[in-house]
Amino acid sequence: MTNLIPKSHPRAKSLYIREQLVHAFDDGLVAKEGLMAHGRGEAFDYLIGEKTSKSAKNAIKAAAFALVCAKHPVISVNGNIAGLCPKEIVELSKVVNAKIEINLFYSSDKRKQNILRTLKKNGAREILGVDKKNTTRISSLDSARRIVDKNGIYTADVVLVPLEDGDRTLALKKEGKKVITFDLNPLSRTAQTADITIVDNVVRGIKELIDVCVKMQKKNLQNIAFDNKKNLAKSISEIKNYLERRAKLA
Amino acid sequence: MTNLIPKSHPRAKSLYIREQLVHAFDDGLVAKEGLMAHGRGEAFDYLIGEKTSKSAKNAIKAAAFALVCAKHPVISVNGNIAGLCPKEIVELSKVVNAKIEINLFYSSDKRKQNILRTLKKNGAREILGVDKKNTTRISSLDSARRIVDKNGIYTADVVLVPLEDGDRTLALKKEGKKVITFDLNPLSRTAQTADITIVDNVVRGIKELIDVCVKMQKKNLQNIAFDNKKNLAKSISEIKNYLERRAKLA
Repeated sequence: MTNLIPKSHPRAKSLYIREQLVHAFDDGLVAKEGLMAHGRGEAFDYLIGEKTSKSAKNAIKAAAFALVCAKHPVISVNGNIAGLCPKEIVELSKVVNAKIEINLFYSSDKRKQNILRTLKKNGAREILGVDKKNTTRISSLDSARRIVDKNGIYTADVVLVPLEDGDRTLALKKEGKKVITFDLNPLSRTAQTADITIVDNVVRGIKELIDVCVKMQKKNLQNIAFDNKKNLAKSISEIKNYLERRAKLA
Repeated sequence: MTNLIPKSHPRAKSLYIREQLVHAFDDGLVAKEGLMAHGRGEAFDYLIGEKTSKSAKNAIKAAAFALVCAKHPVISVNGNIAGLCPKEIVELSKVVNAKIEINLFYSSDKRKQNILRTLKKNGAREILGVDKKNTTRISSLDSARRIVDKNGIYTADVVLVPLEDGDRTLALKKEGKKVITFDLNPLSRTAQTADITIVDNVVRGIKELIDVCVKMQKKNLQNIAFDNKKNLAKSISEIKNYLERRAKLA
């Protein structure tokens, strides 16, 4: 397939990522609903011009600060994230000393095992969310989806939940967690509920997040003023500006 | 699955359509890439407020006029359309006396047969694009994708291509066809290249299109002034307005 995407194609990167996700689906990491969710992300990425915006950079700085300062940070991993950037997830977990927990919206033991294998292949050591002995429940969510690892999300102070659904984000907030998310739709419930929303394609944004964490650890930490609602309003303006520019060219 | 979507859910219709497409995937009508394309559509539908806009209604009127006046109208059917509204495709084909041609981006005989069966189950009589004896080629497209039926798209004056890709739309235009499309992204190449672009969810819009065709046939036909570029600019404004309204509520 890859040979079919010419490098000169104006949207080659997006097509390459799409292809990567199809492979992850074929390998049993990604759910059918995950393929559709990716399509939604593609549309919003298109509308921010497929680049990391100023507002995303602000959010990345705030997220890096929260992760570096966290006592028990946890990265929640689903099929799409594991399919798109397993290497970066493992790298980030090492940089900020965060635990990795597999937590699926459409739960499936088989898919969990496939994700586990992929993460291990990419250098992950401990992976939570797979040992049934360690599961516990968080409130305000329906049965299957409220299960978390008692050594992971349950005890975390800061949770990075890339590509998460609204109900879950809200439940984590109610549990008193600081929630960081990657969500390309600035109007989604997840985006609006999280403490720090990075409106960016996670494949691009996670690299920047790792870089900023590394830089921050080398310097004296200084708190960063960050207002998620205001930053989301900025993201929405960026989409509006993109539409205006493109409409003029059309 | 359907029982899991409460009718009270604010986005129940969208979730129900999503589920319908997953079934069509399981039944072998829809490609993996089709699931992702649906996700992109969902995102844009969200951004027009999940309702048929004024600009879409304009385009539907122009499309109905073109279809009713056409000498050899053809409806091009792919997996997503067959999965989402097979009944309406057949109904529209009967109302405007259009031929139906199966034409897939990711060609596969097995998928063609599954689509054929679904269309027949929904009352279609003749279906083109499946008999290899009748295939011919249109220029300016790569090998597999330029194959069309010589009794269908090849001789058509008006072609309805819902959810089509940009290269193909351009190729049909170069062949001198009048192209009507459903495309939720007003900036896409298909949207910008077609003669009449209906920026609407095809599941909603096709019902309105059938209604308008039926009404038009009962009256004396009067030409409708329609400028696709201007109408697309209106669609883009509608998205911008939606973002503004939602940003104020957030």
